[in-house]
Amino acid sequence: MDKQFLKELKENFSIVFHDVNLLNQAFTHSSYVNEHRQLQLSDNERLEFLGDAVLELLVSRFLYFQYQDVPEGTLTKLRAAIVREDSLASFAKECHFDRYIALGKGEEHSGGRQRLALLCDLFEAFLGALYIDQGLEKVEKFLEMVIYPKVVSGTFSHEMDYKTRLQEVLQRSGDRIIDYRLVKEEGPAHERLFWIEVYCDDELVGKGHGKSKKIAEQDAAANALANLERK
Amino acid sequence: MDKQFLKELKENFSIVFHDVNLLNQAFTHSSYVNEHRQLQLSDNERLEFLGDAVLELLVSRFLYFQYQDVPEGTLTKLRAAIVREDSLASFAKECHFDRYIALGKGEEHSGGRQRLALLCDLFEAFLGALYIDQGLEKVEKFLEMVIYPKVVSGTFSHEMDYKTRLQEVLQRSGDRIIDYRLVKEEGPAHERLFWIEVYCDDELVGKGHGKSKKIAEQDAAANALANLERK
Repeated sequence: MDKQFLKELKENFSIVFHDVNLLNQAFTHSSYVNEHRQLQLSDNERLEFLGDAVLELLVSRFLYFQYQDVPEGTLTKLRAAIVREDSLASFAKECHFDRYIALGKGEEHSGGRQRLALLCDLFEAFLGALYIDQGLEKVEKFLEMVIYPKVVSGTFSHEMDYKTRLQEVLQRSGDRIIDYRLVKEEGPAHERLFWIEVYCDDELVGKGHGKSKKIAEQDAAANALANLERK
Repeated sequence: MDKQFLKELKENFSIVFHDVNLLNQAFTHSSYVNEHRQLQLSDNERLEFLGDAVLELLVSRFLYFQYQDVPEGTLTKLRAAIVREDSLASFAKECHFDRYIALGKGEEHSGGRQRLALLCDLFEAFLGALYIDQGLEKVEKFLEMVIYPKVVSGTFSHEMDYKTRLQEVLQRSGDRIIDYRLVKEEGPAHERLFWIEVYCDDELVGKGHGKSKKIAEQDAAANALANLERK
């Protein structure tokens, strides 16, 4: 493995691999293996399989404890936004992983080094290698540097809280009174439905419904945002 | 929580919850919460969100180390077969989880206690609760009793090894000579393709191709199985 990269890992993330072969494997693309069959290398695909699951658990655990009042549906959307291909590819680039992956010539010439799917897989493979080498809590420490601060600062929160976003958008042009009104509820207790309208300075800006007032308010706010975008 | 269930968990799986509220939450369906709003209960959906990811990691780790020569694509298929809804629902029933979940009357009357999605979610919620209460390795011990023996004995192996399955099917009617023949390979080193034909006692039974001989053989065996099923 490139000495500069080992230095960066150590200085930026306090990571020193015990078994540097794992790190090498994480940074070996199948196209490189195919072009160097005589070397009998292993590509990073199995590590990616493992790393994908490591990431899923750690992000889930983080969200579960960070947002204790947020319902499951919103957590699931937020998790999906964090672990999706373009997010992971951008984390990989921030960590300079794109500079150090070994590619075959064909892959290199066709721009593989910038391909989102390849960078996403690389990021997951790195997590898989780090997990095998040093366990779950070490991967957690890495994510605490690379991913969680972005979650807390709201990079993915468009998936989460439409009410907050609506407030931000409406109050850009000064103070407004935003008001959620329950206009109807019906159905038996176990499948009750709520209808909410949201008003801005007494002007109707969105309608929503849902199985709880909270969900109906989020739905109304999301629809109000969609209406505003159309204007 | 029902005393009989606590006894079963202890005797069958050596599980005793420190915080039995977590266990209660795992066994509380949203329909029950909706019918008993005055109790201000929490349903099991957030625990299911977490448990889903716990299961994904543990199954991935198990497969990764159990099948060291199996390529990522096959591991992914195998994992999907293990964690899919009907598999998890059947694990839930084997553990008698279906007997102990608290449902609303509407859900109960519409047969919710037998619904696969509900049982699958329940199984994941239980894993989430056990994970919070006692950590990853305790969940691993539970899976070692409930899931892994079935993986090793081949319950999900139809997703894995078509060559082995083809051999089983063909040799039911006595010894046969099964023979994989490389008939063509082409393309540059980094994107080489292999064509394989599989013969049984010199009769062509299937054709396949792939990026390696191994993958092409699996493909040929899978196609041979499909041909045999059509007969």
